[in-house]
Amino acid sequence: MPSENEMMNALSAVIDPELGRSIVELKMVRDLIWDSSGVVSFNLVLTIPGCPLKDQMASDARKVLMALPGVKDVVVNFSAMTEAEKKAAFAQGRSAVPKLNQFNQVRQIIAVMSGKGGVGKSTVTAMLAVALCRKGLKVGILDADITGSSIPKLFGLPSGGLRSAEQGMLPAVTGIGLKVVSINLLLKGEDVPVIWRGPMISSAIRQFWGETLWGKLDYLLIDLPPGTSDAALSVMQDIPIDGVLLVTTPQGLSAMVVRKAVHMIRQLNIRVLGLVENLSYFICPDNGKRYDIFGPSHSGEIAEIAGAPAFAALPIDPVIAAKCDAGRVEDVVSAEIDRLVEQIIK
Amino acid sequence: MPSENEMMNALSAVIDPELGRSIVELKMVRDLIWDSSGVVSFNLVLTIPGCPLKDQMASDARKVLMALPGVKDVVVNFSAMTEAEKKAAFAQGRSAVPKLNQFNQVRQIIAVMSGKGGVGKSTVTAMLAVALCRKGLKVGILDADITGSSIPKLFGLPSGGLRSAEQGMLPAVTGIGLKVVSINLLLKGEDVPVIWRGPMISSAIRQFWGETLWGKLDYLLIDLPPGTSDAALSVMQDIPIDGVLLVTTPQGLSAMVVRKAVHMIRQLNIRVLGLVENLSYFICPDNGKRYDIFGPSHSGEIAEIAGAPAFAALPIDPVIAAKCDAGRVEDVVSAEIDRLVEQIIK
Repeated sequence: MPSENEMMNALSAVIDPELGRSIVELKMVRDLIWDSSGVVSFNLVLTIPGCPLKDQMASDARKVLMALPGVKDVVVNFSAMTEAEKKAAFAQGRSAVPKLNQFNQVRQIIAVMSGKGGVGKSTVTAMLAVALCRKGLKVGILDADITGSSIPKLFGLPSGGLRSAEQGMLPAVTGIGLKVVSINLLLKGEDVPVIWRGPMISSAIRQFWGETLWGKLDYLLIDLPPGTSDAALSVMQDIPIDGVLLVTTPQGLSAMVVRKAVHMIRQLNIRVLGLVENLSYFICPDNGKRYDIFGPSHSGEIAEIAGAPAFAALPIDPVIAAKCDAGRVEDVVSAEIDRLVEQIIK
Repeated sequence: MPSENEMMNALSAVIDPELGRSIVELKMVRDLIWDSSGVVSFNLVLTIPGCPLKDQMASDARKVLMALPGVKDVVVNFSAMTEAEKKAAFAQGRSAVPKLNQFNQVRQIIAVMSGKGGVGKSTVTAMLAVALCRKGLKVGILDADITGSSIPKLFGLPSGGLRSAEQGMLPAVTGIGLKVVSINLLLKGEDVPVIWRGPMISSAIRQFWGETLWGKLDYLLIDLPPGTSDAALSVMQDIPIDGVLLVTTPQGLSAMVVRKAVHMIRQLNIRVLGLVENLSYFICPDNGKRYDIFGPSHSGEIAEIAGAPAFAALPIDPVIAAKCDAGRVEDVVSAEIDRLVEQIIK
């Protein structure tokens, strides 16, 4: 029979597809026993009881063990981790992340998140970055929306605009001196699709963080895609963010999905800095009346759940939308955003 | 030294994290050679040249081979698949999918997609399903938006509303008889976050398709989340959809991201049935004037790229939004949606 060491070595090739790391590293293999008839059995300790990927991991484990000389059969039993063990497993995923390049110095990292799509995360991120920059601060934007990248278009940055130096990737620089890293700057055209599964998305975000020469920054803003899957997990687990700025809209459907994001942020022990409600209302240019097109605000309720202040309510402004579509977000001036900046700096 | 068979057996435990299948199954291992000094080398043929996950796979492969008795060193060389080989590899991923349950008979499967978030995919899906149902057709909705599930809320379906029978999961049934399967029907509360990486998302979608007792349906509509990642890939590769209904909004930023989705759909050889522009304009209730709040339409341009007709332009309607937020999408009557249904049926 192979030794325990040999069996553990073989099992270290079995990857938990969710965490992207070996089941041995994650301490998911316990009570490995074998008998002289060649039967090996062990306990596969899952991060989530009833994890839908457990059969795949068990079948992978069976394969690698059966390949060892002398092993006639493999029995995999399942159990689940305690909360503490689970935390340790997820923390371990984190330790594999490249550290921020030694040439970089970033003072504050803020992720802009919603959970929900189309609420204007990218526009808010871009306007906020511009307003911070106007205050004389050094600002960067890491576009973590790999499949729906919008930041370069807002600044009129062309595809293919990223260069590499020996020490890492060089961000693109906008007219007023903002540094931007985004997948769309690496593509041949702005509408080339990025058809990637989760592990590739996480890997790209980690590279944008760890292998970019950001230099000295006062603020790094991270524009997150919708959802609470790979991109959000990677940013929250792999990048030492200082907090999350939540973006929402008045619609009840949005509010529900944003609440999911809030619960995720809390589960990962990250701080919500505050809440911005976008597309809040429309001022009719002809009669000057305010129309709550997407319904009444849900900001108060979300702010309460998040334990954070509702910073601002931004109107639907066709002039801002047109400037953004034209790549001229740097020309946008908004009193609401300037007030938001004051609150963020505080 | 171990035999070629033993080495291939060991390597079959190494998983391509993107495709979620073994590198041996995917025929990514070629030219396996070894010498008497214990050095094994092989070619790892990647689906994408320069795949960022190649180092992980190489390191996993090294581990399993080094664990075999007699192996002293492992050398992994990289090369890339031809287009034909790549197709075969992706097709193989497909074959692992559960077939639609034998008790089911589904005539037409339409995915509703945008690429962009917040354009109203779920609302359009729900209104379309209701309108088809009113025509006496049997209709189901598969909610493939795992992290931002909205369909149950639109129909006022409570969390925890899915049951299981011996042959599979039983869909929830709405007031007018629509069948719905959605992750939010399995959660303890509508705002519980689903913090899952890609493989879990794909696995859930495959279960919603293959392990649900849909019964006899004229139309199954699939509500896709934003993005061109796991959910979109799983629906397009694992479910035999008849075509995609695209949803967009007038904003230029949306149009760019929707074009990404169109290119993805074409790359996967799937048909775009037509295009719906949502949030097209706002009719002021006081002066009756039309305001193109999100800018001029980009429908024509996208329809041309997609090679499909622009079916409809839906206004921003606060009354519809309020009914949707209240879970009463079945009370919505819309002449535009009725016309859309006629075009879909054709």
